[in-house]
Amino acid sequence: MAPDGGSVREVLRVSAPVDLGAIDPRSTPGLPASVGRGEHRKTWAREQVELVDEELGRQQEMLFAMARTGSRRPVQRVLVVLQAMDCGGKDGTIKRVAGAMNPLGLHIRSFGPPTSEELRHDFLWRIRRELPPPGYVGMFNRSHYEDVLIARIGALVPEATWRARYDEINSFERELTEDGVTVVKVMLHISYAEQGERLLGRLDDPRKHWKYDPSDLDSRGHWDDYQAAYAEALSRCGTDAAPWFVVPADRKWYRDWAVAHLLRETFDTLDLGYPAADFDVARERERLLAGGAGAGGAVEMNGR
Amino acid sequence: MAPDGGSVREVLRVSAPVDLGAIDPRSTPGLPASVGRGEHRKTWAREQVELVDEELGRQQEMLFAMARTGSRRPVQRVLVVLQAMDCGGKDGTIKRVAGAMNPLGLHIRSFGPPTSEELRHDFLWRIRRELPPPGYVGMFNRSHYEDVLIARIGALVPEATWRARYDEINSFERELTEDGVTVVKVMLHISYAEQGERLLGRLDDPRKHWKYDPSDLDSRGHWDDYQAAYAEALSRCGTDAAPWFVVPADRKWYRDWAVAHLLRETFDTLDLGYPAADFDVARERERLLAGGAGAGGAVEMNGR
Repeated sequence: MAPDGGSVREVLRVSAPVDLGAIDPRSTPGLPASVGRGEHRKTWAREQVELVDEELGRQQEMLFAMARTGSRRPVQRVLVVLQAMDCGGKDGTIKRVAGAMNPLGLHIRSFGPPTSEELRHDFLWRIRRELPPPGYVGMFNRSHYEDVLIARIGALVPEATWRARYDEINSFERELTEDGVTVVKVMLHISYAEQGERLLGRLDDPRKHWKYDPSDLDSRGHWDDYQAAYAEALSRCGTDAAPWFVVPADRKWYRDWAVAHLLRETFDTLDLGYPAADFDVARERERLLAGGAGAGGAVEMNGR
Repeated sequence: MAPDGGSVREVLRVSAPVDLGAIDPRSTPGLPASVGRGEHRKTWAREQVELVDEELGRQQEMLFAMARTGSRRPVQRVLVVLQAMDCGGKDGTIKRVAGAMNPLGLHIRSFGPPTSEELRHDFLWRIRRELPPPGYVGMFNRSHYEDVLIARIGALVPEATWRARYDEINSFERELTEDGVTVVKVMLHISYAEQGERLLGRLDDPRKHWKYDPSDLDSRGHWDDYQAAYAEALSRCGTDAAPWFVVPADRKWYRDWAVAHLLRETFDTLDLGYPAADFDVARERERLLAGGAGAGGAVEMNGR
């Protein structure tokens, strides 16, 4: 079912000036009103995601196939950049949405605090090394945007340095799109209250202790600063070449529905299809039935 | 249900001298006899794989969690090496078995013909660069074994060079296991007839033309040579540190069942569990409920 008010891409795209305070993290933009309210919406959205899963798998295969036969240059690839506050649902989104696709064609990378080697280079150095190859769907779990978020709030670099990065990011992303990379930047937008509950959930379940880091509370203490830094990054780096989308993420079922549809609509813009054979099909069929190119003998059919 | 005759690992492991001709690609070793025959077995095996999927997901998460908290050294990881003749089902196996796990913790790499840069290095150079990081499950779609298979049949290197590689591989894999890598080497064993049918299937479906390469028929022409080269590689490099398993693979449902169980039993040997917190849980709970470390304020509970 098509979302209300046009595509999910249109509904969730933000433009400057971005006011995150005006976007309710519990809202469900684009979800058809006809679906109704309450538990029913959740069930409906989850069923929709399963339908989209199949389509995503097919589209991913076509993207991959087109890169293998080299019929078009530059060869296309997709890069999903995921950003969120701690507990915002980046891992869960990747598990759910990427889980629908063939792992062979995925290129998933997580960016943590830079290593000493990475710190010796420009902030985009480690990002460039991890771009998805042609035909792949890349997903970045955090990204170069940390360099205008935590780098800014934590004063890890001088102000002049992070201020210059917005333009550097825009140049970099323009270059990517010219090289055939379709960039989809997604901020999973959760509320302060929801983060608190999720952190508590991690503390109260021993199977989740490994996901908890005491420094998460320090970032939480700078909530408003982070929201402001996000708003500026989204305002300054939401471009036509590489738009930013804000997905309200307090409700996980909505988040998964929205990201799956964003990705499907992105694939739709790529004019995907299975490439034509670059060999003579009839001749290959003859060779195969005649016994291949060498010692093997003819195909023996199994009676199955 | 436990497989007949002990574990799948025991049933499928091969040791020197390996005689591939004695292993029927349509057989189903380890499948409990009580399951019966015909269509019923297929349905049963597919249901079993879904049950194992959940367990694989849980085990993978524990492996990942243990690496994150650094409670044990060397940090464990798993590397599945998949080898097969063309159409042997490597891609399908990865899609089905890896698809059960969280893509965030997977490290999947395909090895094609070496690039000019790779050719300037030792044959293990490109393999070492792609080992799974601690806590990850790696899957190699082809591997360093191509360097004693196609390199031998195609005479890409002098005989003395590929002959020396068996020992080099054994040293390399021993080194890996000492570094915490659990290596699981799987040969998907298909018949000449089944390969013929699958190649024909690719030629007859335009959506599969991209998977077909005329050179596949050249390899098919050297079928017996490849079987002999496989037998020697399995015989010489099936070690206690890094055993080889042969999975009869003409039946896809059996192949998936067998590989999923091989992986689950491999996880079972690793003594996995969720790591204990390396912070004071009660104190963090207090900090969180008191409002975090800074300006944020206390957790407000949503009434959901």
